[in-house]
Amino acid sequence: MTSTEQSRVIARQYFETMAARDWDSFGALLAEDVVYELPQTAERVTGRDRLVQFNREYPGDWRIDVSRLIVDGETAAGTMNFTVGDDEMVGLVYLELTGGLISRVTDFWPEPYDAPPGREHLIEQGVSGVDRLSRPGGS
Amino acid sequence: MTSTEQSRVIARQYFETMAARDWDSFGALLAEDVVYELPQTAERVTGRDRLVQFNREYPGDWRIDVSRLIVDGETAAGTMNFTVGDDEMVGLVYLELTGGLISRVTDFWPEPYDAPPGREHLIEQGVSGVDRLSRPGGS
Repeated sequence: MTSTEQSRVIARQYFETMAARDWDSFGALLAEDVVYELPQTAERVTGRDRLVQFNREYPGDWRIDVSRLIVDGETAAGTMNFTVGDDEMVGLVYLELTGGLISRVTDFWPEPYDAPPGREHLIEQGVSGVDRLSRPGGS
Repeated sequence: MTSTEQSRVIARQYFETMAARDWDSFGALLAEDVVYELPQTAERVTGRDRLVQFNREYPGDWRIDVSRLIVDGETAAGTMNFTVGDDEMVGLVYLELTGGLISRVTDFWPEPYDAPPGREHLIEQGVSGVDRLSRPGGS
């Protein structure tokens, strides 16, 4: 059983080693049979070596900044602002830990979309939170 | 200061009262000056009464099932499968609590997109997790 505080250290290292492109240390956090899934594309990567390679080969001169880290027992939710040049995306990550290693990672990469009509009477434009998401034609 | 266990009760009630369309009980969980934001559309709703109305007026015969609830001090991350007929979406929710009330809600509604090329050598198709996201032309 991994405690919340142990999980917090590991979850923090997940993002720190990724940000530093320290792939050996990143890999050391992962269970050998880790499963990484992207529900939006229905893609799955299985196994520590493949997941390290997937991240190592990820293209672009990206930079990440962790914006939330919420840890609860053997689960964690992290969010990050992911920047490539002027383009800003938000990555939403859910981690599961088993025996002090990360056994499952689920990533979402939500994209901007147009507000549906019919709720203008309740809405103000603009957000004030921690998430940095480029919008078409500006940010 | 709201403890993790108090926050867990309130976060659970947020989803339960929403699922039950019990808008009076839902509103009682919210701070009077609650801020609700949708970074993907850059929409913001401010205030308890408006947020209750926003949810009450949300169209469609929707149903929600909570798939994750991760609670840490005065923050929580919840995920839900949101179903309208045969259409399945995933809602990713971040809550902040202040003084035993929900003071900020941030929602993401990620949509399916096509897998980018160049990583087929590492990928298997299909996901096995808790998230139910309809894909164009099937699920």
